[in-house]
Amino acid sequence: MSTLDEAIAAANRNFMDTFARGDAQGMAALYTADGALLPTNSGTVQGQDAIAEFWGGAMGMGIETATLETVELEGDGSTAIEVGRYALGGGGETVDEGKYIVIWKNEDGAWKLHRDIWNTSRSA
Amino acid sequence: MSTLDEAIAAANRNFMDTFARGDAQGMAALYTADGALLPTNSGTVQGQDAIAEFWGGAMGMGIETATLETVELEGDGSTAIEVGRYALGGGGETVDEGKYIVIWKNEDGAWKLHRDIWNTSRSA
Repeated sequence: MSTLDEAIAAANRNFMDTFARGDAQGMAALYTADGALLPTNSGTVQGQDAIAEFWGGAMGMGIETATLETVELEGDGSTAIEVGRYALGGGGETVDEGKYIVIWKNEDGAWKLHRDIWNTSRSA
Repeated sequence: MSTLDEAIAAANRNFMDTFARGDAQGMAALYTADGALLPTNSGTVQGQDAIAEFWGGAMGMGIETATLETVELEGDGSTAIEVGRYALGGGGETVDEGKYIVIWKNEDGAWKLHRDIWNTSRSA
């Protein structure tokens, strides 16, 4: 694995761990200061306060785990593009699974999610 | 506008024009050889044949226009990241609107869509 591969893998482990302990504020801190979520059935969710509220809402709806798997990763020292697959779990079941693209930015040596878009792969 | 801004604006005009004339094969040619769509309610749609089939299917469902608006664009000579808003039209009405991220690749001097993910901003 390259240095970038290892750094994003570590950041994604941190994302999964933070989600699994239900830490919505901690989730927001994984994003850049002007980070944004682009969720289905919603306008853009911009900024750490709004991101904390969004992920807190998901946790409140019974989503207990978010599992991420990197499929493709490219980038340089400041920006990285990740294409991946996700699964959301709750009550011991997989409640959704789909795909995502995350644009990562390196802020002061730490990789943070900057733009985060996903959608379900399940049938409507 | 930078050279990159102008190039992607031209590529997006081409995308909109190609869609509006119902040219599914032409749509596929706007993507890289191993280009991929990541549509909602679907697995990844990879390669130009599958992309032609996908966009032809959308046209067959009555979608007549795809309008793109770039919100953010960054990149270098080989890769660009675009965040944008889209609207789909049919029968004189807007049938969907949402947001997207496209990863562009410059292939032999031409900017082509390489990864294309979007989702609706409308309520479920």
